[in-house]
Amino acid sequence: MHAYRSHTCATLTAANVGETVRLSGWVHRVRDHGGLLFIDLRDHYGITQIIADPDSPVFAELEKLRSEWCIRIDGTVMARDESLINKAIPTGEVEVFIRDLEVLGKSEELPLMVFGDQEYPEETRLKYRYLDLRREAMQDNMKLRSDVVTSMRKRMWAKDFREYQTPIITASSPEGARDFLVPSRQHPGKFYALPQAPQQFKQLMMVAGFDKYFQIAPCFRDEDPRADRSPTDFYQLDLEMSFVTQQDVFDTIQPVLQGVFEEFGKGRKVDDVWPQISYKDAALWYGTDKPDLRNPIKMQVVSDHFRGSGFAIFASLLENAGTEIRAIPAPKGGSRKFCDRMNKFAQGEGLPGMGYIFWRKQSADSIAQERGITVKDVNAMVKAGEIVLGNEAAGPLAKNIGPERTEAIRQQLGLEVGDAAFFLGGKPKAFESVAGRARTAIGDELGLTDKDRFAFAWIVDFPIYEADEETGKIDFEHNPFSMPQGGMDALLGDPLKVLGYQYDLACNGYELVSGAIRNHRPEIMFKAFEIAGYGKDEVEKRFGGMVNAFQYGAPPHGGCAAGVDRIVMLLADEANIREVVMFPMNQRAEDQMMNAPSDPTSDQLMELGLRLIPKDQ
Amino acid sequence: MHAYRSHTCATLTAANVGETVRLSGWVHRVRDHGGLLFIDLRDHYGITQIIADPDSPVFAELEKLRSEWCIRIDGTVMARDESLINKAIPTGEVEVFIRDLEVLGKSEELPLMVFGDQEYPEETRLKYRYLDLRREAMQDNMKLRSDVVTSMRKRMWAKDFREYQTPIITASSPEGARDFLVPSRQHPGKFYALPQAPQQFKQLMMVAGFDKYFQIAPCFRDEDPRADRSPTDFYQLDLEMSFVTQQDVFDTIQPVLQGVFEEFGKGRKVDDVWPQISYKDAALWYGTDKPDLRNPIKMQVVSDHFRGSGFAIFASLLENAGTEIRAIPAPKGGSRKFCDRMNKFAQGEGLPGMGYIFWRKQSADSIAQERGITVKDVNAMVKAGEIVLGNEAAGPLAKNIGPERTEAIRQQLGLEVGDAAFFLGGKPKAFESVAGRARTAIGDELGLTDKDRFAFAWIVDFPIYEADEETGKIDFEHNPFSMPQGGMDALLGDPLKVLGYQYDLACNGYELVSGAIRNHRPEIMFKAFEIAGYGKDEVEKRFGGMVNAFQYGAPPHGGCAAGVDRIVMLLADEANIREVVMFPMNQRAEDQMMNAPSDPTSDQLMELGLRLIPKDQ
Repeated sequence: MHAYRSHTCATLTAANVGETVRLSGWVHRVRDHGGLLFIDLRDHYGITQIIADPDSPVFAELEKLRSEWCIRIDGTVMARDESLINKAIPTGEVEVFIRDLEVLGKSEELPLMVFGDQEYPEETRLKYRYLDLRREAMQDNMKLRSDVVTSMRKRMWAKDFREYQTPIITASSPEGARDFLVPSRQHPGKFYALPQAPQQFKQLMMVAGFDKYFQIAPCFRDEDPRADRSPTDFYQLDLEMSFVTQQDVFDTIQPVLQGVFEEFGKGRKVDDVWPQISYKDAALWYGTDKPDLRNPIKMQVVSDHFRGSGFAIFASLLENAGTEIRAIPAPKGGSRKFCDRMNKFAQGEGLPGMGYIFWRKQSADSIAQERGITVKDVNAMVKAGEIVLGNEAAGPLAKNIGPERTEAIRQQLGLEVGDAAFFLGGKPKAFESVAGRARTAIGDELGLTDKDRFAFAWIVDFPIYEADEETGKIDFEHNPFSMPQGGMDALLGDPLKVLGYQYDLACNGYELVSGAIRNHRPEIMFKAFEIAGYGKDEVEKRFGGMVNAFQYGAPPHGGCAAGVDRIVMLLADEANIREVVMFPMNQRAEDQMMNAPSDPTSDQLMELGLRLIPKDQ
Repeated sequence: MHAYRSHTCATLTAANVGETVRLSGWVHRVRDHGGLLFIDLRDHYGITQIIADPDSPVFAELEKLRSEWCIRIDGTVMARDESLINKAIPTGEVEVFIRDLEVLGKSEELPLMVFGDQEYPEETRLKYRYLDLRREAMQDNMKLRSDVVTSMRKRMWAKDFREYQTPIITASSPEGARDFLVPSRQHPGKFYALPQAPQQFKQLMMVAGFDKYFQIAPCFRDEDPRADRSPTDFYQLDLEMSFVTQQDVFDTIQPVLQGVFEEFGKGRKVDDVWPQISYKDAALWYGTDKPDLRNPIKMQVVSDHFRGSGFAIFASLLENAGTEIRAIPAPKGGSRKFCDRMNKFAQGEGLPGMGYIFWRKQSADSIAQERGITVKDVNAMVKAGEIVLGNEAAGPLAKNIGPERTEAIRQQLGLEVGDAAFFLGGKPKAFESVAGRARTAIGDELGLTDKDRFAFAWIVDFPIYEADEETGKIDFEHNPFSMPQGGMDALLGDPLKVLGYQYDLACNGYELVSGAIRNHRPEIMFKAFEIAGYGKDEVEKRFGGMVNAFQYGAPPHGGCAAGVDRIVMLLADEANIREVVMFPMNQRAEDQMMNAPSDPTSDQLMELGLRLIPKDQ
């Protein structure tokens, strides 16, 4: 028999009854039922119940076992009584009567229980990660992550992509974030950088003729930590293709990601239509470039209804150039209580409040008032069918602008009795993100957002440039390597009107993918940089490798990168990246289990030609 | 039609004749046959011949094309004349008559030709790597590498291993080489390290219950470059398993690697028996722990034949303790010319020479001399069948030790007429490696080593400790984490006799794999370190993460790591790792294409709390 196991802890069934078996695993739980000992033995694959009575040759030793000891047992498989069958686990029909025991690894007292669902501070979980990872939820998350990455690879291969590895110790990459540096020993005083993304290398591969590249690529950005971002390394499904248009990239990656979500979504609905929404429309409709399309609410411009109206705040605001009033329709939100709650939400976001109108069924009261007759008369006329109760706009804002304008707004927004609308005004840039958050809150509060669904949208037509609010200086809005729509001609006009072949994929409010058709023409690239104030020398200094390469027959190419960690977070329904990473750093970018970062030795510093700046300077 | 291509340059055949097609690619070669232009258009997939005559609407533009311009063409597929069919390429039956042309990317004058086999200095090739990589041999090597890695993954998955990623920015790993350090910005003055291997993390995963792990893992060692080693990052197929013995690891990895060699070996023979040879026997038989078993020569101890013999050098040498004489048999090496050449080889290795004996057919001369009769008589007796010419040992060494001893040697080594043997003596450690190299040279020179074969051997039973030659101090011979054979009991005896469950795989003279069954018992680990002079504090300081983890129910586990780059080198039949890496560093660990390493900015240094030591200090 094998030294450690004839079966795993997930394989024994009634078919094995009578067999002598050997199992290894961890003591998950011990129960003592009046002399009868029950041990749940756990391994990576499952749990098998082990039993022993005082006649067992190893009973005395068994009594010494504690949780999480690693043991090897020999025993005889027995059928459980009908009444004791556990249908929840594959091995629930049987138990193993123990005949021999070997302790493979004892355990000290546990700082963290594996059995059960007790919560522990993150500090404890990360310091004893090897125990934390033994818990079922973490085992499941790590297996999910591994399976998702495997599925991505298989899907990319099926599309004739090859995976190529790019350098990790390399040159600084201009992705906008901060580089991690690596001092060179062979060239003291000089530094390598870890790649923020394999951007330049994948483009160089296209210049080298590799046509279709992908990589599950480790990326490194020295950023301050937050829940959905690792402070050190993270992974992207990175791809690049030659001789393609934007639509080709979409047609390549959609089936890959859609397939992954369908495979691992545990029955949640996965949209198969991925609308393409311009950056401008996304801002207008959703107040963000990563909209959550599970929420059906779409904002609209309603400026005309407020221009010159009795609602002085909006009316006078609209006299300033570049201002707008936008409405957030709230179907089924037509109650004063709800509207007041949303108004409070807006105040929490730092606004003076959010104007609203809600529509309710007309009351006899208001008709009586309108027509100058008694409520009694109205009720009688309704009964006689002489009056039909229509709808009625409520809220202070409705009063200020009057019934015609409110009705026009209702019709534009397609709302009915029982619905509401919220209004925000000013320069769009100033209120769009609050409007977006209000839209999210409204969708959530009203239960309009289907939580069991993955909804995707391509955000396209990003502007290449933006102007600094104060100085008016033109700079790249996004990534400087995207091809401007219209090529060189477009760059000769108003830079702020130039759109790029640049795109993001939003899913449920997260940015999952970012990419572009690249600017592969050196003359257009130099021009694009010139507009943003970078001279030829500067471009050659910072991006020399790539710009030089483009002088030697560069093909049109483009691609994208999908965030692996975030995809796994969505699939696992986790809000913190540390739940889907095997050995994450803590929020201060420390690994307290392995003691990183730590003090260098003076020999190491000497070899690298470095000296520490004393702390008190 | 698609903006860039309806087909790749490898897909058109006679079945497409008459179709209008669109192709994109690079101008591989232009030939002007008296007004008729032939262009070989190349993409990642193949080459298609494009033709044009002066009637072509784009003839004038075509004449401006130069090598490696990237172009898009439209044209009509035409059958080639029977006599012009090129059977060497899939598109050889057709050519495309060009109707439209678009230049996608012009090229400057080329520093390196893609077409043809011209050789360039490595400096040029690496600086213009994107051109170098366009060459067919490099495209093939990179595709091979990618396909090998893919095959490894598929084979590991088929064995129920999951791939899990381990941290890249982490703590120093005790693999014996020099770490690359990464200064921390959030903790100025402290440093992370890049992992030399995921050793500790994979062991922690076993403690965490993951049972079967693998990873195509990037590893980082700050080592001085050599031909078969990257100066920065390289890749390993890293795996670890719980509840296994050494044989389980062998049974897991052999089919994976054997399968990869069979799949990509291009018909070269792949041995399916992988003998297990002890470290001690490997040293004796092959003079190395990474023997090339394609070479059938096995060395033997022949001390007894020289003890007290007339060959004074060996006889007196054997009077010292710990000395031995070893023979390298050289079948078919029995000529003075060859023996002299090998003797010269030994002198080139710094030895005074290598004694030898070779066996030839007995001559009538020597019998005449031996029996004191005339050569004529001997010849007559041979003719009459009264004498049978036997064999005869030649060379000065044979004369010194006499016919009986030479005959005993011949019989022990199983040699015949036409064969030779070489002899080295002394303390084995002092001459083993030279003996190994001599064995290789003999095998090569005599054509005994089958070059079209992959021969594997597990080297097992490595000693855990070695004693320093001068100080006698005991230190780890290999990796301190291996389980000693015999466990704690073994550690209580003579440390130099303790063997480990530690193994390497040799293939054709290279070390491809290294691994061990790990020491998972804290008490045995502390004892093992104590013997090598490391106190408990020191162990906890250096390997705290792992040692702590072992206190909480550690399972027996083991694994190995296979060098991906080296495997691809063997399969591609390349001697330099830079031929199988997409973007390698040069020998000085520089990337002159991307300009790495480079000077940090003073802001970067300030943020990291670092200062450069001025050069002249």
